[in-house]
Amino acid sequence: MTEYSLFTSESVSEGHPDKIADQISDAILDAIMAEDPRARVACETMVKTGVAIISGEITTSAWVDLESIVREVINDIGYSSSEVGFDGATCSVINIIGKQSPEINQGVDREKLEEQGAGDQGLMFGYASDETDVLMPAPITYAHRLVERQSKVRRNGILPWLRPDAKSQVTLRYGADGRPEGIDAVVLSTQHNPDIGLADLREAVIEEIIRPVLPAEWLSKETKYFINPTGKFVIGGPVGDCGLTGRKIIVDSYGGMARHGGGAFSGKDPSKVDRSAAYAGRWVAKNIVAAGLASRCEIQVSYAIGEAQPTSISLNTFGTETVPHDRIVAAVRDVFDLRPFAIIRDLDLLHPIYRPTATYGHFGRDPYTLNGAIAFSWEKTDRAEALKAAAS
Amino acid sequence: MTEYSLFTSESVSEGHPDKIADQISDAILDAIMAEDPRARVACETMVKTGVAIISGEITTSAWVDLESIVREVINDIGYSSSEVGFDGATCSVINIIGKQSPEINQGVDREKLEEQGAGDQGLMFGYASDETDVLMPAPITYAHRLVERQSKVRRNGILPWLRPDAKSQVTLRYGADGRPEGIDAVVLSTQHNPDIGLADLREAVIEEIIRPVLPAEWLSKETKYFINPTGKFVIGGPVGDCGLTGRKIIVDSYGGMARHGGGAFSGKDPSKVDRSAAYAGRWVAKNIVAAGLASRCEIQVSYAIGEAQPTSISLNTFGTETVPHDRIVAAVRDVFDLRPFAIIRDLDLLHPIYRPTATYGHFGRDPYTLNGAIAFSWEKTDRAEALKAAAS
Ligand SMILES: C[S@@+](CC[C@H](N)C(=O)[O-])C[C@H]1O[C@@H](n2cnc3c(N)ncnc32)[C@H](O)[C@@H]1O
Ligand SMILES: C[S@@+](CC[C@H](N)C(=O)[O-])C[C@H]1O[C@@H](n2cnc3c(N)ncnc32)[C@H](O)[C@@H]1O
Repeated sequence: MTEYSLFTSESVSEGHPDKIADQISDAILDAIMAEDPRARVACETMVKTGVAIISGEITTSAWVDLESIVREVINDIGYSSSEVGFDGATCSVINIIGKQSPEINQGVDREKLEEQGAGDQGLMFGYASDETDVLMPAPITYAHRLVERQSKVRRNGILPWLRPDAKSQVTLRYGADGRPEGIDAVVLSTQHNPDIGLADLREAVIEEIIRPVLPAEWLSKETKYFINPTGKFVIGGPVGDCGLTGRKIIVDSYGGMARHGGGAFSGKDPSKVDRSAAYAGRWVAKNIVAAGLASRCEIQVSYAIGEAQPTSISLNTFGTETVPHDRIVAAVRDVFDLRPFAIIRDLDLLHPIYRPTATYGHFGRDPYTLNGAIAFSWEKTDRAEALKAAAS
Repeated sequence: MTEYSLFTSESVSEGHPDKIADQISDAILDAIMAEDPRARVACETMVKTGVAIISGEITTSAWVDLESIVREVINDIGYSSSEVGFDGATCSVINIIGKQSPEINQGVDREKLEEQGAGDQGLMFGYASDETDVLMPAPITYAHRLVERQSKVRRNGILPWLRPDAKSQVTLRYGADGRPEGIDAVVLSTQHNPDIGLADLREAVIEEIIRPVLPAEWLSKETKYFINPTGKFVIGGPVGDCGLTGRKIIVDSYGGMARHGGGAFSGKDPSKVDRSAAYAGRWVAKNIVAAGLASRCEIQVSYAIGEAQPTSISLNTFGTETVPHDRIVAAVRDVFDLRPFAIIRDLDLLHPIYRPTATYGHFGRDPYTLNGAIAFSWEKTDRAEALKAAAS
């Protein structure tokens, strides 16, 4: 479903430093949301050798033990000893968090809740295509599954010498019909214990990570494999690379197949349209494709800070629409309310549902009940029938 | 030149906290490159109330006074007193920079210089279209010009009550021919002294910033203006919002009109393909459009860490090509060498040319001589003739 004959996407594991930062930011958000759903949270994290720094702007009535949350996230990931390079129990935790500017707050809060203004200006895209069963582009889907599998075989003891930090990259070949037809190249770098040899590591990665995940019919003699191409990857996590919240926004979304507005997700409560409107954009696009109105769809929305109504809503169906384009646009306006208040209400976003979004993609995931709410509610195709009716 | 009837892009000024971080990271890179062009630099910055933290991985023989560089950048921007909320002279500067992992280094360095491996895996896009004279999309071009103008009238005393932090956003209306035909909405938020009233501020912003920049024929009675929509923006910079390097990657590139691979630019020496291959991608795409081979062009390249040859090169001309698509692809392969070594050589990237890239866009800028090298060399159309010849 692309104009490209080759398309490459990448993903990273939960032990990648930028992803450690994202998970800390979202764990802090969740802890606060659990006690104070209307808190204003913008939490940014930096991790580097021996230290995690949390920063940003938070206004809340909740009291949460931030230091413990940070240590717990790091240990949960598997960074729990000096041997692996980082230890949640003994690293330094520095807190330089401030409060939300009252001038921003006055622009966002309204007497009538429905009129809540956007927490910032900005542009966001949502995307869906029928290329996979989860209505996501195939390259990012398989890139995620590779690093998810790395985590699984690390945790379940199949490959006990794996360490938490890993990256994957998949180059798909597309046919003239725009359908994926093979895998041209796979890159996988994984952190490991010093006692595993490179040849053994490469074989194990192929057998236990790559083969179980990638469709056999897409692998051929032409497929190129790059497994730990640097030869050695014992040093990983924050020692090898400084991690920052919001630095994996293409991994978090569509792997480069769709456009991106630039806003990060993790650490932000849903009054920030960077997050909530990008989730809504995915929800709209997925419902359009689920309704059969197009097989590929990208939506752009934009906001002005303090304004409830989007400054623009725009739709691209790449010539794949099954009814006239303006009928789809009209149906979207009928069926979806894209004011921040309405998005938060319709997707039920004021709950501690964010930490799981910080790894392996915010989109293309199965919704499930978490802490009394639906996590990944934006993946529901609950408006497809209404869209179909409105467009016909 | 888009399938969208409305398209929105945003930009931010040099006083925006994320841009302060980008400028500090690139100023540090430049100071090191001036003394040690082969240094390995990955410099990440966090700014928050009263503090600038520099982090990342640097391996160099140069000695530079990092603290002074940080203070100088902050003061240059205009954050030089407690009154404006941040003071380069008195803020805390914390240095937690480490060294490049020797394991990454061994993967990148090669005995034969030409075989230098990519400093990381990743995907990058380059883009150009004939929508503006600088061969950039119009929305991001005008969004940049608005905040550049904000800086100009702040510095030259026309609007002395302006403060450094500002954001702009432009929604363009496109006609059926895919050409911009009007401006639907303009958002501009600017930090200001407490003594200017909102009505006066709005009028001055329209007269001195918006009108001098936006084409009069694109403004009409239907154009919506959102100027300081929160009503007050005295608190700005790092006090109002934590700033991080690499958090404005869509502002830095094509404003969302092109796809993005996710890699940030600032603070990275050109052995990092996130930066150098994105620059090369722009150079290739711009030369294709300048050669008249297409009026709109997007290129994707990808790399494996430690490998010199890209793992994929792929081209999208959106149906605007004037010669068959595979002839353009072949011409690109003939005329451009996209190994890291060759990019660095051909664009002459081992010089202190980076700080100016950290504000108002890395692309669509005029090349000029800076510190003995060409800044923005990737904007040269010096390969258009060769491309034309190779494709014919
Ligand atoms: C290559 S590092 C980024 C560059 C780094 N800032 C520098 O100074 O070179 C990016 C990511 O690659 C992975 N990585 C780290 N060490 C590696 C190694 N020895 N081989 C392969 N990948 C590695 C980690 O996931 C890390 O976060
Ligand atoms: C709205 S802030 C981001 C949100 C912030 N982290 C929070 O907690 O609300 C993003 C940017 O908006 C701008 N900004 C800050 N204060 C503002 C105000 N009072 N009105 C309009 N824009 C503002 C600054 O450029 C700032 O970097």
